[in-house]
Amino acid sequence: MSELRWDPLKLHWVIIATERGRRPRDFLVEPETQEMMSCPFCYGNEDKTPPEIFAIRPGGTPNSAGWKVRVIPNKYPALRIEGELNNRGHGLYDVMNGIGAHEVIIETPDHNRGLADLSPAEIGDVLRAYRARLLDLRNDRRFRYMVLFKNHGLRAGASLPHSHSQLIAVPLTPPVAATELRICREYFAGKERCIICDLIDFELRSGERVVREFSDFVILTPYASCFPFELRLYPKRHACDFAALGDSDLANLAVALKEMLARLKSVLRDPPYNFILHTAPPRQPRLGKPDYWSSIEFDYHWYIELVPRLTQIAGFEWGTGFYINPTSPEDAASFLRETEL
Amino acid sequence: MSELRWDPLKLHWVIIATERGRRPRDFLVEPETQEMMSCPFCYGNEDKTPPEIFAIRPGGTPNSAGWKVRVIPNKYPALRIEGELNNRGHGLYDVMNGIGAHEVIIETPDHNRGLADLSPAEIGDVLRAYRARLLDLRNDRRFRYMVLFKNHGLRAGASLPHSHSQLIAVPLTPPVAATELRICREYFAGKERCIICDLIDFELRSGERVVREFSDFVILTPYASCFPFELRLYPKRHACDFAALGDSDLANLAVALKEMLARLKSVLRDPPYNFILHTAPPRQPRLGKPDYWSSIEFDYHWYIELVPRLTQIAGFEWGTGFYINPTSPEDAASFLRETEL
Repeated sequence: MSELRWDPLKLHWVIIATERGRRPRDFLVEPETQEMMSCPFCYGNEDKTPPEIFAIRPGGTPNSAGWKVRVIPNKYPALRIEGELNNRGHGLYDVMNGIGAHEVIIETPDHNRGLADLSPAEIGDVLRAYRARLLDLRNDRRFRYMVLFKNHGLRAGASLPHSHSQLIAVPLTPPVAATELRICREYFAGKERCIICDLIDFELRSGERVVREFSDFVILTPYASCFPFELRLYPKRHACDFAALGDSDLANLAVALKEMLARLKSVLRDPPYNFILHTAPPRQPRLGKPDYWSSIEFDYHWYIELVPRLTQIAGFEWGTGFYINPTSPEDAASFLRETEL
Repeated sequence: MSELRWDPLKLHWVIIATERGRRPRDFLVEPETQEMMSCPFCYGNEDKTPPEIFAIRPGGTPNSAGWKVRVIPNKYPALRIEGELNNRGHGLYDVMNGIGAHEVIIETPDHNRGLADLSPAEIGDVLRAYRARLLDLRNDRRFRYMVLFKNHGLRAGASLPHSHSQLIAVPLTPPVAATELRICREYFAGKERCIICDLIDFELRSGERVVREFSDFVILTPYASCFPFELRLYPKRHACDFAALGDSDLANLAVALKEMLARLKSVLRDPPYNFILHTAPPRQPRLGKPDYWSSIEFDYHWYIELVPRLTQIAGFEWGTGFYINPTSPEDAASFLRETEL
C-alpha cells in the first residue's frame, strides 16, 4: 500500500506510491544535446560575458583565459543590483522593486565536463568560489538571503550546457527558508537540540536511507522525498553556515559532493537535476530589520538538497502542495548504494 | 525595472521580470503528438477501463458506448480506496496509509476534441459530473478534501491525450488549501468581509488584468502570477462551494470556462496547462476531527486556477518558493483580451 509521509522540517506530506514502484530504468531518457556556435563560458570568450566579479586563476590577467573558476554577473538578471527597494502597498497586494544580485559561477573552463566529472580538488575550488561570493554579498545590507543553486540539464532549467551554478541575493527571506528557519528555531526553543541533528541521528541509526557516510558528512535520501532519487548531503557536525567553513572542511565536502553527483550520474545516466544550498541567512543587522537571526547558529544546520528532474509537477502538485513519488526513498538509496562508480 | 509582488491569499512573492518581457510567440512550441494503438477512453473500449462510477448517458447500458461524460476509477491510483488510515508516528516523522479515491472524468467520447473545443452544453455536462462526484465522495468520512484538476498536454503531465480531468480525495487538507482557508478565515474574522470578494472588487475597479467579464463570472490574470499567462476564473457572487451550484449556475460557468480555455488556446496555440478547482472542504464532521469547517460559507470563495506550463520550475523556484515570471500579468491580460476567437 502506498504511504503518506510527513516532513517535520519542510512541513509537507508526500504520497510514496510504492505500488507504482518505478526503478531507475523507468526514468532513463535520451540525453539532450544543446548545440552552440560559440560558448561564452569557454576560454577565449571572456569578453562575451560581463566583466568577472571573482575568479580562481593561478596566473594571467582578469577577463582572459587561464582561470579555474570564474564568477560573472548574469547577463539576463532576474533582479538588478542598482536602486532602492521602495517597499509599498498596492491595494491588498504588496510590491517592491526587483533589487538583488544575480551571479553565475562557471565551474570549469572545460565545456564538456559536468560538476560530477571534476576532481575533488576542482570541486573544492568551486566551493571556495561559493564561499567567497556568499561572504562578499553579505556586506550589502539590502539583501536578506543568498540563494545558491545549480540547474543541470535542459529539463532542469539550464539554458547553457557549460557547467555552472547561480547565486541570487534577494531582499526578502524566501518562503522555503523562512519556514525552515522558524521550525528549527521553535524546535530548539523547546528542546535545546537542533532538529536537523536529530533527523541525521535518526537516519544514521536506521541506515535504510543512507547512501554513503563519511567521517564529517552523510549522503541520504529523505524519508518524505517529494521526488524519485531526491538526495541530501548533511554535515554530521552541527554548523549553521556553509560560508563559515574552513578550507579543510571544503576539501572534505568536495569529496562527498563528488560522490553524491557521481552515484546519481551512474544510476540514472546523467539525469537533469537541481541542487540548492540551504544555509543560514546573513547575521549582520539588515536594513530596516531587527537583528533577528544573530542567534541562528544554534538553531539551524546547513545542507545541500538535490532534486533530479525525472517527473513532472502537474495540476495535483501545484494545486495542493502534495507530491506523489513513485520510487520509495529506501529503494532509491539501495540503487544509489549499489551502483558501480 | 522588475518587481517583486506579494499575493495575500497564497502567501507568496513573485518576481515579475518585465525586462525579459516575453510575448506569446516566445513560448510557442511544436505540438506534441502522443500516438496510441487503441485509446481506452474511446467508444467501444469501455471494458479496457475499470467499471464506471458515474456517467451522463442519454440511453444505453453502463460500460458500453453512448455516454457523453464517463467517470471511472484511475487504473493506476495514487491512493487506494480500501483500508484504514492508521495515522502514526515514525521517529520525528509521521506516516499514514495511502487511503483515498482517484477518479478520472472522461470529458467527451471524441478522441480529437479538447475541453476548449466542446460546446458550452457539453462543458456543462462535464461540470455536472464534477459536482456529482464531489457530492458523492463527501459521504466518505475518511476524506478531508477533494482535489479536482486537469492536466492538458504531455508537458503538463497528461499521460493520455484523450481529454480528461481527475479527482483525488485525500485524507488530509492539502497544504495549499489549508493556507487559503486559514487566510480567508482570519481576514473574515477581522473585517467580516471575504478576502477573495475584496480582491475581485479591486481587480474589477482596476480592469488592467481583467480578460473578460460576464454577469456572474470574471476571468483575470492574477496580480502576483507565478507563471506567464496564469489565469483565474472567479464567481462574482460570494459562494464557498462549487458543488452547491445549481444547473443554471453551471450553464453560465460553462460559457465562461469555454471562453477562458478558447482564449488561451488562441493566444498560445493550444499550450499545455493545468487547472485546479479550489473549493470548500466537506462541511460534514470528518472522522476523528472537530467540525472545523462547518462555518466556512462566509470565509471562503471558490474559483478555478489555470496555469499554462510554459516555463520550468528549476532550482531557484524549488529551493526558495519564489517564482520568476517573465511576462507581466498586465501584458498577458492584454494579449488574451485582444486575441481572435
